[in-house]
Amino acid sequence: MEKKIALKDVARHVGVSAALVSYVLNGKEKEARVSPEMSSKIRKAAAELNYQPNVIAKSLKIGKTNTIGLIVADISNPFFSSIARIIEDEAKKHGYIVIFGSSDESADKQQDLIDVMLNRLVDAFIIAPSAGTEKQIKELKKRNVPVILIDRYFPGMEADCVHINNFQAANKAVQHLIKNKRSKIAMLAYDSQLPHMQERKEGYKAALKENALRFKNSWLLEASYQNIEQDVAKKMSALLQPLQVDAFFFATNSLAVAGLKKINECGIKVPEELAIISFDESDAFDFFYSPVTYVSQSVADIGKEAVKLVVSRLHNKTAKAANVIVEAKLIVRESCGSKTKKKK
Amino acid sequence: MEKKIALKDVARHVGVSAALVSYVLNGKEKEARVSPEMSSKIRKAAAELNYQPNVIAKSLKIGKTNTIGLIVADISNPFFSSIARIIEDEAKKHGYIVIFGSSDESADKQQDLIDVMLNRLVDAFIIAPSAGTEKQIKELKKRNVPVILIDRYFPGMEADCVHINNFQAANKAVQHLIKNKRSKIAMLAYDSQLPHMQERKEGYKAALKENALRFKNSWLLEASYQNIEQDVAKKMSALLQPLQVDAFFFATNSLAVAGLKKINECGIKVPEELAIISFDESDAFDFFYSPVTYVSQSVADIGKEAVKLVVSRLHNKTAKAANVIVEAKLIVRESCGSKTKKKK
Repeated sequence: MEKKIALKDVARHVGVSAALVSYVLNGKEKEARVSPEMSSKIRKAAAELNYQPNVIAKSLKIGKTNTIGLIVADISNPFFSSIARIIEDEAKKHGYIVIFGSSDESADKQQDLIDVMLNRLVDAFIIAPSAGTEKQIKELKKRNVPVILIDRYFPGMEADCVHINNFQAANKAVQHLIKNKRSKIAMLAYDSQLPHMQERKEGYKAALKENALRFKNSWLLEASYQNIEQDVAKKMSALLQPLQVDAFFFATNSLAVAGLKKINECGIKVPEELAIISFDESDAFDFFYSPVTYVSQSVADIGKEAVKLVVSRLHNKTAKAANVIVEAKLIVRESCGSKTKKKK
Repeated sequence: MEKKIALKDVARHVGVSAALVSYVLNGKEKEARVSPEMSSKIRKAAAELNYQPNVIAKSLKIGKTNTIGLIVADISNPFFSSIARIIEDEAKKHGYIVIFGSSDESADKQQDLIDVMLNRLVDAFIIAPSAGTEKQIKELKKRNVPVILIDRYFPGMEADCVHINNFQAANKAVQHLIKNKRSKIAMLAYDSQLPHMQERKEGYKAALKENALRFKNSWLLEASYQNIEQDVAKKMSALLQPLQVDAFFFATNSLAVAGLKKINECGIKVPEELAIISFDESDAFDFFYSPVTYVSQSVADIGKEAVKLVVSRLHNKTAKAANVIVEAKLIVRESCGSKTKKKK
């Protein structure tokens, strides 16, 4: 049994008023014209008595820290750092701060992050879940910790999530290539069982089928998340040297950036020899000599909707899970060629 | 005076062993074959009694949360999100997690972030300080909270900091333009009093002077941090339409990306009509038709050194301030032309 030290205990110890102690410990000694000697005496006493400021003590009492744990694949990926920025701004509006962590698409790392954040009593989580982490999410829900999934989700699991319709967006992207007279369309995706990645692949296959185009297993490349650049270069070589396809659909911006480097290296001309379309945005897409057509997911909408959901869950934990679909837009530029271009 | 609820209090309340309670509250009920009814009973009791897990209670006792507050200008800027990623990884090795915040180069926002983070008892700060925030840093030091400055610093202030030699790096960049026969060299910087920005400007001026080249006030453009793209376009117009200079030195990657867009828009050819050199990296630099020569600051080194310093300060708060200079490298590519190119 430990006595909790209050502001007034510090005041009594020094022999001053509680208000004076409050001024000093809140850094307002100047406004209150407290002498440096007195400030230092009060700070020293507070430290000796192990006085703890209000917020965290109050957190312990009410079981809230006003902190949201954010877990993404990699905070240095512009897609996730942009979402993080939006989440930070939106969370702040509601009085929350954000702790972040990168899972590197590893289920183990994600579990570590969840454990560490739970130990710090985060009030809720926003997670872009790694593959094979359904159980982790279910466990959080069992513990009654609000969790919002972003970018990815698990079909059949009743969980709050914010994402685009990946099948539809991928389908639309490949349809755009076909409208531009491309028929030998390859796709570069991640070697991942994550549903959003699977659905992008399915959307690609469906678009081919709907147009009576052949799907070849060897044209669906799957790169590993580790050593992206090397793995992409290795896998694309098979289709680029010599060139066996007339279009490439990239499932993410990181894959596209690595892919475009390889395409440049092989001296292949876009869109004349090869049409290009990608998911997500990148500064590289703007500056590629043939500005890249892409599927734009609104990171602002994803971030805003996630915070909106998390805040509403913190007030009503028992509400039915929401499945928020954010619109994806096809931003057409030059990398798919014009509609009148002859097919190779 | 409040009694702290222990695991054994929860156990006594439910009438089970403390070990059983521990299993359930640590999510190990399955391994321990606890029935769902018993799990739920224990969780409910823990909640009713307001039982708090160990870590944060221990934090309150020892005054440590193993949390580092990271404040950068904008987490969505790749320069800062890359540093954040390194800091996250390095901090984790030492058992620390990271709370982040973006100051938007505003002193007020930075103070808000410091207050919020201090209230959550972060053990230490890593800050890329906004202009006019010397007092905030001094106040933290007065409170004996370890703080490491990254990217920027305040001359004359005794504080731990990790940064490059900005004067030297800028000087070297402009010397490189001059070696490539450029003589009408403009610079685009931020309209900021931050020392690192000032030193980049001084490095530019010094390089001109050392080569007996003329410095014109109207060639040193200063953009506002707000609405970068618009402001850069407006300010660069004066020098690009018609073209009055033969080289542009950009003080950051964001400025360069905005600048390159304007240069493309004006149909100016790099490096034939205009040589380009920038600070920092960007995917855009790789994909610009004339790959951009740049000053590379090692974000890995900055992040690693910052965490090394912060950890050492947490163990020895009274040590003398360290000023860690990280090496900057000039990465020469095509945007400055060859050394034999004739000057315009």
